[in-house]
Amino acid sequence: MNILIINGPNLNLLGKREKSVYGESSFEDYLELLRKHYPDHIIHYFQSNIEGELIDQIHKYGFDIDGIILNAGAYTHTSIALSDAIRAIPAPVVEVHISNIHNRESYRHVSMIAAACKGSVIGFGLDSYRLAVEALVNKL
Amino acid sequence: MNILIINGPNLNLLGKREKSVYGESSFEDYLELLRKHYPDHIIHYFQSNIEGELIDQIHKYGFDIDGIILNAGAYTHTSIALSDAIRAIPAPVVEVHISNIHNRESYRHVSMIAAACKGSVIGFGLDSYRLAVEALVNKL
Amino acid sequence: MNILIINGPNLNLLGKREKSVYGESSFEDYLELLRKHYPDHIIHYFQSNIEGELIDQIHKYGFDIDGIILNAGAYTHTSIALSDAIRAIPAPVVEVHISNIHNRESYRHVSMIAAACKGSVIGFGLDSYRLAVEALVNKL
Amino acid sequence: MNILIINGPNLNLLGKREKSVYGESSFEDYLELLRKHYPDHIIHYFQSNIEGELIDQIHKYGFDIDGIILNAGAYTHTSIALSDAIRAIPAPVVEVHISNIHNRESYRHVSMIAAACKGSVIGFGLDSYRLAVEALVNKL
Amino acid sequence: MNILIINGPNLNLLGKREKSVYGESSFEDYLELLRKHYPDHIIHYFQSNIEGELIDQIHKYGFDIDGIILNAGAYTHTSIALSDAIRAIPAPVVEVHISNIHNRESYRHVSMIAAACKGSVIGFGLDSYRLAVEALVNKL
Amino acid sequence: MNILIINGPNLNLLGKREKSVYGESSFEDYLELLRKHYPDHIIHYFQSNIEGELIDQIHKYGFDIDGIILNAGAYTHTSIALSDAIRAIPAPVVEVHISNIHNRESYRHVSMIAAACKGSVIGFGLDSYRLAVEALVNKL
Amino acid sequence: MNILIINGPNLNLLGKREKSVYGESSFEDYLELLRKHYPDHIIHYFQSNIEGELIDQIHKYGFDIDGIILNAGAYTHTSIALSDAIRAIPAPVVEVHISNIHNRESYRHVSMIAAACKGSVIGFGLDSYRLAVEALVNKL
Amino acid sequence: MNILIINGPNLNLLGKREKSVYGESSFEDYLELLRKHYPDHIIHYFQSNIEGELIDQIHKYGFDIDGIILNAGAYTHTSIALSDAIRAIPAPVVEVHISNIHNRESYRHVSMIAAACKGSVIGFGLDSYRLAVEALVNKL
Amino acid sequence: MNILIINGPNLNLLGKREKSVYGESSFEDYLELLRKHYPDHIIHYFQSNIEGELIDQIHKYGFDIDGIILNAGAYTHTSIALSDAIRAIPAPVVEVHISNIHNRESYRHVSMIAAACKGSVIGFGLDSYRLAVEALVNKL
Amino acid sequence: MNILIINGPNLNLLGKREKSVYGESSFEDYLELLRKHYPDHIIHYFQSNIEGELIDQIHKYGFDIDGIILNAGAYTHTSIALSDAIRAIPAPVVEVHISNIHNRESYRHVSMIAAACKGSVIGFGLDSYRLAVEALVNKL
Amino acid sequence: MNILIINGPNLNLLGKREKSVYGESSFEDYLELLRKHYPDHIIHYFQSNIEGELIDQIHKYGFDIDGIILNAGAYTHTSIALSDAIRAIPAPVVEVHISNIHNRESYRHVSMIAAACKGSVIGFGLDSYRLAVEALVNKL
Amino acid sequence: MNILIINGPNLNLLGKREKSVYGESSFEDYLELLRKHYPDHIIHYFQSNIEGELIDQIHKYGFDIDGIILNAGAYTHTSIALSDAIRAIPAPVVEVHISNIHNRESYRHVSMIAAACKGSVIGFGLDSYRLAVEALVNKL
Repeated sequence: MNILIINGPNLNLLGKREKSVYGESSFEDYLELLRKHYPDHIIHYFQSNIEGELIDQIHKYGFDIDGIILNAGAYTHTSIALSDAIRAIPAPVVEVHISNIHNRESYRHVSMIAAACKGSVIGFGLDSYRLAVEALVNKL
Repeated sequence: MNILIINGPNLNLLGKREKSVYGESSFEDYLELLRKHYPDHIIHYFQSNIEGELIDQIHKYGFDIDGIILNAGAYTHTSIALSDAIRAIPAPVVEVHISNIHNRESYRHVSMIAAACKGSVIGFGLDSYRLAVEALVNKL
Repeated sequence: MNILIINGPNLNLLGKREKSVYGESSFEDYLELLRKHYPDHIIHYFQSNIEGELIDQIHKYGFDIDGIILNAGAYTHTSIALSDAIRAIPAPVVEVHISNIHNRESYRHVSMIAAACKGSVIGFGLDSYRLAVEALVNKL
Repeated sequence: MNILIINGPNLNLLGKREKSVYGESSFEDYLELLRKHYPDHIIHYFQSNIEGELIDQIHKYGFDIDGIILNAGAYTHTSIALSDAIRAIPAPVVEVHISNIHNRESYRHVSMIAAACKGSVIGFGLDSYRLAVEALVNKL
Repeated sequence: MNILIINGPNLNLLGKREKSVYGESSFEDYLELLRKHYPDHIIHYFQSNIEGELIDQIHKYGFDIDGIILNAGAYTHTSIALSDAIRAIPAPVVEVHISNIHNRESYRHVSMIAAACKGSVIGFGLDSYRLAVEALVNKL
Repeated sequence: MNILIINGPNLNLLGKREKSVYGESSFEDYLELLRKHYPDHIIHYFQSNIEGELIDQIHKYGFDIDGIILNAGAYTHTSIALSDAIRAIPAPVVEVHISNIHNRESYRHVSMIAAACKGSVIGFGLDSYRLAVEALVNKL
Repeated sequence: MNILIINGPNLNLLGKREKSVYGESSFEDYLELLRKHYPDHIIHYFQSNIEGELIDQIHKYGFDIDGIILNAGAYTHTSIALSDAIRAIPAPVVEVHISNIHNRESYRHVSMIAAACKGSVIGFGLDSYRLAVEALVNKL
Repeated sequence: MNILIINGPNLNLLGKREKSVYGESSFEDYLELLRKHYPDHIIHYFQSNIEGELIDQIHKYGFDIDGIILNAGAYTHTSIALSDAIRAIPAPVVEVHISNIHNRESYRHVSMIAAACKGSVIGFGLDSYRLAVEALVNKL
Repeated sequence: MNILIINGPNLNLLGKREKSVYGESSFEDYLELLRKHYPDHIIHYFQSNIEGELIDQIHKYGFDIDGIILNAGAYTHTSIALSDAIRAIPAPVVEVHISNIHNRESYRHVSMIAAACKGSVIGFGLDSYRLAVEALVNKL
Repeated sequence: MNILIINGPNLNLLGKREKSVYGESSFEDYLELLRKHYPDHIIHYFQSNIEGELIDQIHKYGFDIDGIILNAGAYTHTSIALSDAIRAIPAPVVEVHISNIHNRESYRHVSMIAAACKGSVIGFGLDSYRLAVEALVNKL
Repeated sequence: MNILIINGPNLNLLGKREKSVYGESSFEDYLELLRKHYPDHIIHYFQSNIEGELIDQIHKYGFDIDGIILNAGAYTHTSIALSDAIRAIPAPVVEVHISNIHNRESYRHVSMIAAACKGSVIGFGLDSYRLAVEALVNKL
Repeated sequence: MNILIINGPNLNLLGKREKSVYGESSFEDYLELLRKHYPDHIIHYFQSNIEGELIDQIHKYGFDIDGIILNAGAYTHTSIALSDAIRAIPAPVVEVHISNIHNRESYRHVSMIAAACKGSVIGFGLDSYRLAVEALVNKL
């Protein structure tokens, strides 16, 4: 399977920023482990702080790929445009969050994109990404 | 007259995306028809999924052009920055929507840019653009 | 084509009332110009300040006419009954407003009838009516 | 017993309008059946699309009649004036709705008149009227 | 001075309806006393339960009369159309309420017409009308 | 027909509790009258103060019985779980209330279960149950 | 009759402050006119910017005086304590406002004290005080 | 590892109820597959429609077990008591939903228990349970 | 005097759960102290995590006992059914909370049962129970 | 122990004002009984209708005294300044209310000071003060 | 220049109260430093816990002084009366806060006085006062 | 010190756009003055209309620079992503606004970034930037 992981704003700072919330390893380190764990699948990766570039990427891959894993960061809570992009493509999108957004500020409790996604995995640290891959590639 | 049509996020997918809502023809096809219908007027066209690039374009043309037709897509409902850009320029801006936004999710019922525009044309499919051109170039 | 224009409360005062908002010409003068501009179409006209008479008129014409142009005035913002009447008939209804309702008091920003209409034309002065006729009779 | 059934806006279209919601028979047909079912009671009938005429009728009958059955249609959700009229008369008023208003748009979930009525019968199709008559004329 | 008193819905029942709230005398009896008290002024009177007829009356008199006293009854709390009618005429309008609306249901605490009126007199029983006349005809 | 009446919390106290609101007879006395009135139908009865036991009962009967009459008491206003149970079964459920819930505290004006039910009968005292049976067993 | 006029915060600046809203004469000048106009009545006067001193004054006079006229200024919109003081005394209190509070910021549209007062006179400039006196001392 | 799966109200009907939303297999069938898939782990199972019994179970196991997987059904959206129970125990709790709750009624978009849980897995059908087990037993 | 203490959900874990909020001693230990402190009074005790069992207990004792002390735990904030049970019985009920609920999550600031109780004692740790007993058995 | 009782606005009228709500004895009479009941403790007393004087008093005593009992009257519901004063001092403050504020107007259901206090005693009449003293001076 | 610094409720405790929020030095110490830093300007100082005395002071100085620096403390969030006082005077008023009010309780995020002030300086500790002086006395 | 000034959307039009609100000089002119005023400090400058580019810039400088001055323009009111970026870096950020945002549309009264910043300077025209520099480089 071909899978695209998209990370939104500020997630380029993983391992640098607010370590008590997001942990100490960079996403690139984690990605390497993830690719090793799923040697039979191709995992693409894209990060941007620009909402419209996330949309561009969803458009570019969304008609051909087997699944997208999207951590939209703070745009999760405000972006109708992202949710439209997800609805516009045939590929299933899995929403992912590293921290438990329901344990943080109330404006993080609402997801504008959840309804457009296939499902959500929230709060398991970086392991949320593995569970999202698992949701796309395996089934009982 | 010189007119600029600006299309916002996901409108590059017209003819591809959610055809039951937005119809089957691409915007480029439609644009050709529109230009033929108004041979005496020059109709420029710009599309971007990036909110700030829409603002850049409004700044670039807004001081010299005769009118702007803006379908801000999902940014319609959230962007104060776009509404500031519209207020900052002398050219009249006509808000356009292909679908009837009042028939869809409640978060699409609010337009942050309507108050800054000269007027709005909503819900006539792609024909909304022709009516917007009509509003700028003719008068009884 | 047979078209009915319906004007709601206080629109009988056009040309008399709040001229800075609604302009100086009476609706009758404008109607004459409009009929001349569309000599191939029959444009009926009705005005009432009584909500229920607007409904009666929609019922009376709505099963036989080619389209209705409705400026429901202040009932726009409160009348579920009008919206039910629009939904009950097969003829397409175009919502029209002379002023930009989004530039006025916040209770004018909500339209109870928009979702029941085919589309809306808002804020182009009396020219909004011409654009509404245009939306019913022509197409690219 | 003397009973008055009052139907509000758009209910004159029963059997014509949105048949999937309101059914196929006209109210007049149904009324005939109802009168046959209750030969010992006199059932008056009034319909208007004008809020104030509904009030006039409530005033006219409300001091002498044994009960009123009121389907206020869309005015149910907005009319304080109707609720005042109901409170002003001694006759008991039964609120009736054909469709289950709680299964429709959220603005139909609120009844401004329910508190002024003796009780409400909601959602049984035209049979709601029979149950309302039953509530007025019989008792265990 | 020429003054018009307009009474809205259910006020035709004064002296009949909810006497503990509105008192026992009919408005006609009171009007006679009021006219005797102000023999130098002409006091016209109009009552209707139909919102649009109240608007018609405001239009008919509002351009020639010296003042209007308006008890809009329950339409006070919902009618934007009435407030538009008041704003459309040059004559000053005084809002009047018999009972203290702030002592009743919360939906009676909001007046949609107060902002369009010159001023309001609330809660003095029928004496509210005399105070309103006083406000129009005298001044220190 | 086989019908099940389910009474929710505190309704075991009927005839004991707040008599001015709920009347003086116990539900068991009333049930006897009701069964006599409908000798051709079997009326089962269940009462519990435990939300989950009401759900259990709906599950147990809901696939085989001809109709359920449910007075969910205070759970009416809060229980999504009950509404899910009603939606899960094929038998029609009629919502019943003894008092006029719209005449009481505002938190009683909302019903979480109404949308899942076939219809509602509200405010006729114990007679609401007879009307609900009537709604299930007869039709014009 | 003995009447007490109480003016709340900032009303000591009348004639000095925001003249376009409140007019040019000081309250002392106006008071002189008012006392001359009602030579048979004694009109006391008190002003303070301190909420608690307004309460003290209401307590001090409220058990012996024939009526209080209260312009609570900005405390109108926030003071439950003032409303408690009004409810605690037997003397009738008339709420007065110089400007039309419904024509100003939305936080001025709510009066915390209106429900505790006998009635309200709003928007007639300083003449509001005369009308309030009139309401206390005369009757048809 | 010892894991407890707890299912809340109406989940005993899986395979019977609203199959378009929840699928066709019963939870018992699925549980068998799940246990086979994780032969090294012990998976306990409990279901109840009674909120307090879910709490009892959390108390009983929560101090000794390695993890709890909780699908609280409709109690998810209302139960502070369940959330207190989760906070009271040392075992990590994973919130699970079969359907995408953000695609359903708005009252299902809020989870009262999410903040108390370690994380959430939403919308993957019955596969959500496997992902939850995965989240407890494995890690990169 | 005969007094019943009722503890709601999760209070069986006192001394085990969130010790920083609720303290370290179990309720049973505390109860022993309390009974010793009031040797002339009989203090019954009941705890359940099931809302309906709390109601059952209130019904069972509420007609014969001298007072009930109720710590409804999390049901405090959601249970209309409990509040109905309290209103249905003649015995006075004192609401008790161990922690200061106003210092915790905002959904704990609202009590659905307070209005039905005689009074409330909040925030004194386990000593709240002694103060509640004191409120029932003594008076100056 | 040294204890200060502070009473806020309108509580100087106890025994005079709204006796059905607050009882018939003056606070001074009650204070005498209270001092006799606790001969080993010194109970200071202060009352003012001025919010800032209540704050001054809290500042003056709050650093040296063993506890403060505060009935802030109507300021309870609006005063952030009082709550800041309570937070600023080391002495524990017990909030007291004579009537059950949850049984009165909804704006009395919110306490701005409760979160800053040690605890609250509400609704036991004047006995609330005794229970507050009890909370400060004794413990099991 | 003549400048007046006004400090509102609880700011007399600076250096004493909640040192982690407001710092350790008293305002008097700081004032001395500030006066030394601006030897060419006269800096008056006033503090009160009484809202009305803050208004009195604004009235007294506001017509003659060059600028006012106002830290209204908790009255910032509730006082319309203070905002009226600021609007009533010609002197510019600078709003100042020591702590970052947006980092604290949500009821501190709203300022009722900001719109009436020239500008605001928030969150720089006591240095906020120096920046406010700077805003009044210097300019590039 | 090294300081970075970041200007957000539409601020490139300063001196061109809505001069009555923002003044007549361009930001570049002002920047020159500012640099001259602080010759010992290095002031970098960046402007973009793209939200994500503002975030990129904050990431790029935020780990090495002594302070950032951020006028986020309209993104102030909507961008959680910007606020996350500010929280992610060690450099202090000062929020700046040219106009008094509390004097404009209500959607400008809320700042999503204020809580993440060290402090805010609002409403002093371009002088707000000087005060922000002052806040970073000097202290009493």
